[in-house]
Amino acid sequence: MEVIRINFKEQLPIVYQAIEESDFLAIDGEFSGISDGPSVNTLTNGFDTPEERYHKLKKHSMDFLLFQFGLCTFKYENAESKYITKSFNFYIFPKPFSRNSPDKTFVCQSSSIDFLANQGFDFNKVFRNGIPYLNQEEERLLRDQYEEKRLQANGSGAVSYISPNAPKTPVSIPDDQKSFVDKTMERLEAFLKDEERKTLELEPCTGYQRKLIYQTLNWKFPQGIHLETVETEKKERYIVVSKVDTEERKKREQEKQAREQEKQAKELEELNDAVGFSRVIHAISTSGKLVIGHNMLLDVMHTIHQFFCPLPDELSEFKEVTNCVFPRVLDTKLMASTQPFKEIICNTSLAELQKRLKEPPFKSPKVDSPEGFPSYNTNSEQLHEAGYDAYITGLCFISMANYLGSFLNPPKGHVSARSDIIRPFFNKLFLMRVVDIPYLNLEGPDLLPKRDHVLHVTFPREWKSFDVYQLFSAFGKIDMSWIDSTSAFVSLSKPEQVQIAINTSRYAESYRIQTYAEYIEKKNQDSNA
Amino acid sequence: MEVIRINFKEQLPIVYQAIEESDFLAIDGEFSGISDGPSVNTLTNGFDTPEERYHKLKKHSMDFLLFQFGLCTFKYENAESKYITKSFNFYIFPKPFSRNSPDKTFVCQSSSIDFLANQGFDFNKVFRNGIPYLNQEEERLLRDQYEEKRLQANGSGAVSYISPNAPKTPVSIPDDQKSFVDKTMERLEAFLKDEERKTLELEPCTGYQRKLIYQTLNWKFPQGIHLETVETEKKERYIVVSKVDTEERKKREQEKQAREQEKQAKELEELNDAVGFSRVIHAISTSGKLVIGHNMLLDVMHTIHQFFCPLPDELSEFKEVTNCVFPRVLDTKLMASTQPFKEIICNTSLAELQKRLKEPPFKSPKVDSPEGFPSYNTNSEQLHEAGYDAYITGLCFISMANYLGSFLNPPKGHVSARSDIIRPFFNKLFLMRVVDIPYLNLEGPDLLPKRDHVLHVTFPREWKSFDVYQLFSAFGKIDMSWIDSTSAFVSLSKPEQVQIAINTSRYAESYRIQTYAEYIEKKNQDSNA
Ligand SMILES: Nc1nc2c(ncn2[C@@H]2O[C@H](COP(=O)(O)OP(=O)(O)O)[C@@H](O)[C@H]2O)c(=O)[nH]1
Ligand SMILES: Nc1nc2c(ncn2[C@@H]2O[C@H](COP(=O)(O)OP(=O)(O)O)[C@@H](O)[C@H]2O)c(=O)[nH]1
Repeated sequence: MEVIRINFKEQLPIVYQAIEESDFLAIDGEFSGISDGPSVNTLTNGFDTPEERYHKLKKHSMDFLLFQFGLCTFKYENAESKYITKSFNFYIFPKPFSRNSPDKTFVCQSSSIDFLANQGFDFNKVFRNGIPYLNQEEERLLRDQYEEKRLQANGSGAVSYISPNAPKTPVSIPDDQKSFVDKTMERLEAFLKDEERKTLELEPCTGYQRKLIYQTLNWKFPQGIHLETVETEKKERYIVVSKVDTEERKKREQEKQAREQEKQAKELEELNDAVGFSRVIHAISTSGKLVIGHNMLLDVMHTIHQFFCPLPDELSEFKEVTNCVFPRVLDTKLMASTQPFKEIICNTSLAELQKRLKEPPFKSPKVDSPEGFPSYNTNSEQLHEAGYDAYITGLCFISMANYLGSFLNPPKGHVSARSDIIRPFFNKLFLMRVVDIPYLNLEGPDLLPKRDHVLHVTFPREWKSFDVYQLFSAFGKIDMSWIDSTSAFVSLSKPEQVQIAINTSRYAESYRIQTYAEYIEKKNQDSNA
Repeated sequence: MEVIRINFKEQLPIVYQAIEESDFLAIDGEFSGISDGPSVNTLTNGFDTPEERYHKLKKHSMDFLLFQFGLCTFKYENAESKYITKSFNFYIFPKPFSRNSPDKTFVCQSSSIDFLANQGFDFNKVFRNGIPYLNQEEERLLRDQYEEKRLQANGSGAVSYISPNAPKTPVSIPDDQKSFVDKTMERLEAFLKDEERKTLELEPCTGYQRKLIYQTLNWKFPQGIHLETVETEKKERYIVVSKVDTEERKKREQEKQAREQEKQAKELEELNDAVGFSRVIHAISTSGKLVIGHNMLLDVMHTIHQFFCPLPDELSEFKEVTNCVFPRVLDTKLMASTQPFKEIICNTSLAELQKRLKEPPFKSPKVDSPEGFPSYNTNSEQLHEAGYDAYITGLCFISMANYLGSFLNPPKGHVSARSDIIRPFFNKLFLMRVVDIPYLNLEGPDLLPKRDHVLHVTFPREWKSFDVYQLFSAFGKIDMSWIDSTSAFVSLSKPEQVQIAINTSRYAESYRIQTYAEYIEKKNQDSNA
């Protein structure tokens, strides 16, 4: 189901219900870009530590816009042994909701935009009809402003006419305001004596001065006049004093309160509209449901960054925030890359995984979708519509989970999202292209592989991969990961070879070799310096 | 006429011709945003110096994309006393043209995007069908690469078969390559003796090693074999040796050269495609025609930045570059704000100006457009399609220029783009909202108004405009320009008041006042420190 700005409020209860009733849900995001600096390969180096990867993605990926969010909810129907799926495609755009609201900027990367354009992505839908959103800080600020305004309005409502419980003692007027207040009182007394005149407009003045006038009048003239603050075209505020009897005063007061209440209700609605799509994420978050994604680190980072809070500086804090926002996540790319799937699934890209899981030993689950929801045909690919990708991701999860059930004693054809057998895959996010750390562990410290067979090599810009392979040709099979155009990591087959390599490099002029440990140590020194 | 990626090449000659035959042309750009930091009012402070304005726009406006370029050419037909207009709407997008081409990123500002969306702007047309472009440096790099490849291909073409004018002396082989070359020669001799075999595939090796083999074989076996370099799937290159007679060799050589020429022609075409829209700007530039724009500083800056070169750091250099790229420009907003128009035109925004110029004493020019070009109806507004805005801008110029003609003796109904009477407006770009410097002078130093009645005021964040006005209430009429939330410029009516204001401020705690001269001096000190 397509959800855009104009049908968002109407669809929201349906979204809430779908989340609430689901056994699990799958998500997917489309972004306006991936990297605003390094090439994608540099962003995902084979020997990144989880910290390095997190910092690089935070630095180079977060200024892009998550502008399509796919959500697919899955609810198992025991009676018919099938899943009911509800898939949503949200278009998202930070339309400024008022003259004073944040005017967000975001970055676009040509290659990503071009890729989506080739998939037929509808940018007009995003930019013309995208749902707005606020992060928590922005929402809080707006709610504070709203509350302040409400209190002030109610307050000034109370002093805008001469209150029955007017102060019994004179207001203390600071010295520098005395002449101003005195002059105003003179004008007022003249006005009250002049029977011809019904209203008096005072001069524009500051909020503080208005407060002094209100208080003084409340004390001096507890009855018979009504005060109201009015704005000029230039936004200067001034007080209008009118003569009124008690009856009239009450009526005016009631009218004013009704107007005020209506205005407040409208403002509250506008505020909720401004929070917009973030409400969906809050609902996902508070539901505590298992959230499935495919290669979902960037999706999780973007979701938190855009709809909750700027990403924290430290990876450990990011893990904490993620545990709050998504208490249970599962990454199908990690699952497919792990035993017992690793052996029988050779390509874990979403499209290939989906195809593979239609073949034995896997079984495609029975799925159905209620009226009004898309019933996607998985044979005609529609990849890169986020709602479809989320749907496919959920299907992949079901097939893999059910396959695990076949190892149980007795075997189980249906494995639920609450089954212990999938517990080992919880809260681990796939780390793309890292050679020796399969996942980011959200529930504790990360794996710390010994990289004692890894070298850091520096060389002239002119070198190509071949030159590096050539350099290590004596050492048998090696692996190489570019860092930038003058350095790379090289992993040797055997740690014993490391010392030999370093020894032979000692007199080389064009290139330099150090161990991974030395490299990390220097890097830490530099970052502490 | 709408010009997008697919019809660009076909339309280019028409665009060139329209530029060539025109008397003058008008341009307008649409951008993905205006400011990536300061509010628009802060970006355009009333007391900016031309340098400050240039530096702010360079810093905060250039990361946006100029994604629609409007061009309207105007050619006067004496016989019928009318202008023939040809209006073009170019959609522009930096689609990466190959795996190795720059993957540009650009910024979008929500409010600008939202504004364009409300005007019905078609973002899909930009992102799916936008014309690519390169700046001069990128083009040069690509041409160099192309040239290098071409030379290399032709070179290796010459050594890829055994040349009749093979070297008469042996090739000198460096020590560390001797064993490699010797081994290769052994394999080759064995191959040549073996009558069963027709071809031999050598091992993949470096470019340098291939060169050594080519040279050695050219010398050792000037006849009877043909060499060709082939690439494996992993992009490793190796040499294939085949036995051939002279006839066969010649045929192969010719085929190869034909293939090579075809490939080069295709690459040259791809290169020109990649230069894309920049070719239109080059044509405008080299035509030397008068280029009209409305409030065109940002248009000029973006055009240069996107299609020529990154903007220089200094304003004086920017003026030089602009004089090269646009030898003659005229800004209709400046014209409308200057004598004798100033007095009779109260609103100089494009839409209002256009309406005003339909009324006496102005006359609407007679215009016509050839088939295939839009004949815009200026009564139903279509503002913010760049081609339409360019068209309107041109019309405004004609009406104002012709009005100037009425002052000549004898009066002239038609003033041409070459008339001396408009010369005073050449090469001056309107400076938006600067109080006392109407334009940026491209032909020399800028006006340097004495700002001896201007104060720089610093105050608490809580202050509103009113508080500042209040502070200076004793001085009569003042003007105020916000710098940021804790400072502003205030101009007094009389320079004599400056010292009084500074004296009274001496003991104030909440605010500080300094003269404009003091402010500039400190600022220069800070930037030199
Ligand atoms: N000197 C040199 N650097 C390279 C070469 N190939 C890649 N690099 C560097 O390594 C980075 C990652 O390269 P690669 O893994 O090929 O990714 P890609 O450039 O995004 O396709 C590049 O941005 C370069 O800085 C090469 O052949 N020579
Ligand atoms: N302290 C204070 N700062 C202001 C006020 N109004 C504007 N500013 C500052 O001046 C800048 C320009 O303001 P303004 O000219 O109103 O432009 P706008 O904020 O873009 O509408 C703002 O970004 C603020 O930093 C005000 O009432 N009080």
